[in-house]
Amino acid sequence: MQVFYLLDIIGTMAFAMSGALTAMDKKLDPFGVFIIAFVTAVGGGTLRDTLIGRTPVGWMLDLNYVYCICTGFLLAVVFRKRLDALRKSLFLFDTIGLGVFTLIGLEKGINTGLHPIICIAIGTMTACFGGVIRDILCNEIPVIFRRQIYATICIFGGIVFFTLRQLRLEDDILYLVTSVVIIAIRLLAVKYRWSLAPLEK
Amino acid sequence: MQVFYLLDIIGTMAFAMSGALTAMDKKLDPFGVFIIAFVTAVGGGTLRDTLIGRTPVGWMLDLNYVYCICTGFLLAVVFRKRLDALRKSLFLFDTIGLGVFTLIGLEKGINTGLHPIICIAIGTMTACFGGVIRDILCNEIPVIFRRQIYATICIFGGIVFFTLRQLRLEDDILYLVTSVVIIAIRLLAVKYRWSLAPLEK
Amino acid sequence: MQVFYLLDIIGTMAFAMSGALTAMDKKLDPFGVFIIAFVTAVGGGTLRDTLIGRTPVGWMLDLNYVYCICTGFLLAVVFRKRLDALRKSLFLFDTIGLGVFTLIGLEKGINTGLHPIICIAIGTMTACFGGVIRDILCNEIPVIFRRQIYATICIFGGIVFFTLRQLRLEDDILYLVTSVVIIAIRLLAVKYRWSLAPLEK
Repeated sequence: MQVFYLLDIIGTMAFAMSGALTAMDKKLDPFGVFIIAFVTAVGGGTLRDTLIGRTPVGWMLDLNYVYCICTGFLLAVVFRKRLDALRKSLFLFDTIGLGVFTLIGLEKGINTGLHPIICIAIGTMTACFGGVIRDILCNEIPVIFRRQIYATICIFGGIVFFTLRQLRLEDDILYLVTSVVIIAIRLLAVKYRWSLAPLEK
Repeated sequence: MQVFYLLDIIGTMAFAMSGALTAMDKKLDPFGVFIIAFVTAVGGGTLRDTLIGRTPVGWMLDLNYVYCICTGFLLAVVFRKRLDALRKSLFLFDTIGLGVFTLIGLEKGINTGLHPIICIAIGTMTACFGGVIRDILCNEIPVIFRRQIYATICIFGGIVFFTLRQLRLEDDILYLVTSVVIIAIRLLAVKYRWSLAPLEK
Repeated sequence: MQVFYLLDIIGTMAFAMSGALTAMDKKLDPFGVFIIAFVTAVGGGTLRDTLIGRTPVGWMLDLNYVYCICTGFLLAVVFRKRLDALRKSLFLFDTIGLGVFTLIGLEKGINTGLHPIICIAIGTMTACFGGVIRDILCNEIPVIFRRQIYATICIFGGIVFFTLRQLRLEDDILYLVTSVVIIAIRLLAVKYRWSLAPLEK
C-alpha cells in the first residue's frame, strides 16, 4: 500500500513541524528544536514498539523517517516567520497524520495478536503520545489532556475500524473508511470547537 | 495464588482512583483523567516489563487490568464530590497496592534471574513509578521524591523478603510476611508523619 | 579494553554526582536525590537498550554500575557543602563521561547492525538523555535544549568516528581519537562559552 506509506511520510513531516513550532515558542536552541521535532514525530510509534517488543524501534530501521523529520524541521525553521499563513495546510497534514498513525497502531496491535481493546489503545498511543512527550519535554501539562477532542477521535476511529472489520470488508476499504472518519471528525471538531468539559469537583 | 491476584486487582483499582483524583484536581478533561488513572495504575509495571524485556507488557495480555482501571476511573468520577469521605478506605487500598506491587516486582525480577539488589530496585519501581509518571504528566515534581516515606518502605520490604528467603521459608509465608511488613510500616509512617528530611546544602 | 571500562565507571560516577547536585538544589529528600542520581547516570543507556531491544537493560546485569552510583551519591551528599570547590574536577569527570558514553552508544548501535546515522543518534542519546530525564523529573525544560553545546558535540564526535572508521584505523586508535575530540571540544566550548542561539520567531 504505497499510498499509505506516502501518507505516513506526510504525517511524520507534519508532526515534526508541529513539534518544531512548539519548541520555537519555548525559545529552545536549534538542537532542542530538532529533538522536540523528532520526538513529536516518532514518539508515539517508539513507545508502541517498545511496549509490544518490536525492537529496534521503527525509525531505527527505516531512514526515510529521519529524512522526513529533518525536512520538516528545516521547513519549520526556514519559514518560521511565515508559518501562521501556513497554519491551515499544517493543520490538514497534522490531521492526516492523526488518521494514518492510528491505523498503523491498530495494524501493529493486530499483527502482535492483541485484543481489539488493546489494539485501540495502541492506535491512540501511536497517534497521540508523540504530542504528550513533546509537551512533557517543554514542561507543559499535555494539551490533549486539557483541551480539544483529539485522542477521543482515535478511540472512536478504532471502534469504527473493528466494527467494519466484523463485516469482513476488504482491508483497503477498511483503512480508507477509518481514516476518512477520523479526519472528518477532527475537522468538524476543530471547526465547531467541540471539547470535553473538565470534571469539576 | 488467587488471593494474591485479587489483591493485585484491588491495588490496581486503588491506584487508578488515586490517579483520577490527582488529575481532577488539575482540571483535566475526562480523557486526560482516564489516561492519568491508567498510567498511575500500570505505569510502574509497564516500565518494569519494558526494562526487563517482558513484552508485550503485562496489561496488554490481561484485560482484567483494563476493566479494573475503567471501574476505578468511573468510581472516582461518579463519587468525586464525596471522595473526601472515602479517603480512608482509598488510602488503605493504595497501601495494599504498594505491598502487592512490590512483591510482584520482586517475583518478576527473580524469575528473570536478576541479583537481589536489582530485584529490590524492580520491586520498588513497580510500586512507585506509576505515581512518578502521574506526577510528571501533571507537571509536578514527583511527590515521592519530596515528602513521605514511600519508596523507602518498598526497599525495606525487599530487604525483609530476601532475608526471610535465606531462611528457606515457604513462598506463601514469605509473601504474606513481606506484604504485611510493608503495609504496617506504611500505616505507621502516615499515622506518625515519618518523613525523610531534605538534604540542605 | 579495561581502560575503557574504567572510564565508563568514572563517567557513571560523575553523572550520578551531577544528578545528586541538581536534586539537592531542588530540596528533594534523600530518596529523591538517590533516584535522580541513578537516572542521570544510567538513563541514557537504559533508553538506548530499551529502544534497540537489549533487555534486561545494562545496569541490571552488572552491579558495578549500582555500586558506582551509590558511591557517587554518597560523595555528593557528604561533600555537598564543599562541592563548589570540587566543581572543576567534577566537570572534568562529567566531560569524560560524555565522551565515553557516546562511544559506548556508537558501539552498541554498530553491534545491532544499524546505519551510521542511527548509531550517531544512539550515541548522542546515551550521553545526553540521562540529563534530559533528570531535568524532566526535576520539572525543568532540559538544559541541553536551552543552553550550552552539549549534544551537538556528541553528534560531531559521531561523525568524526565514522569518518575515521572509513580509513580502517584500528579500533583502539578510533576510540581514543573520538573521545579526545569530544572531550577537547567540550572543554573549549565551556571555556569560550560557545552556545547555539535560540531560534527567534
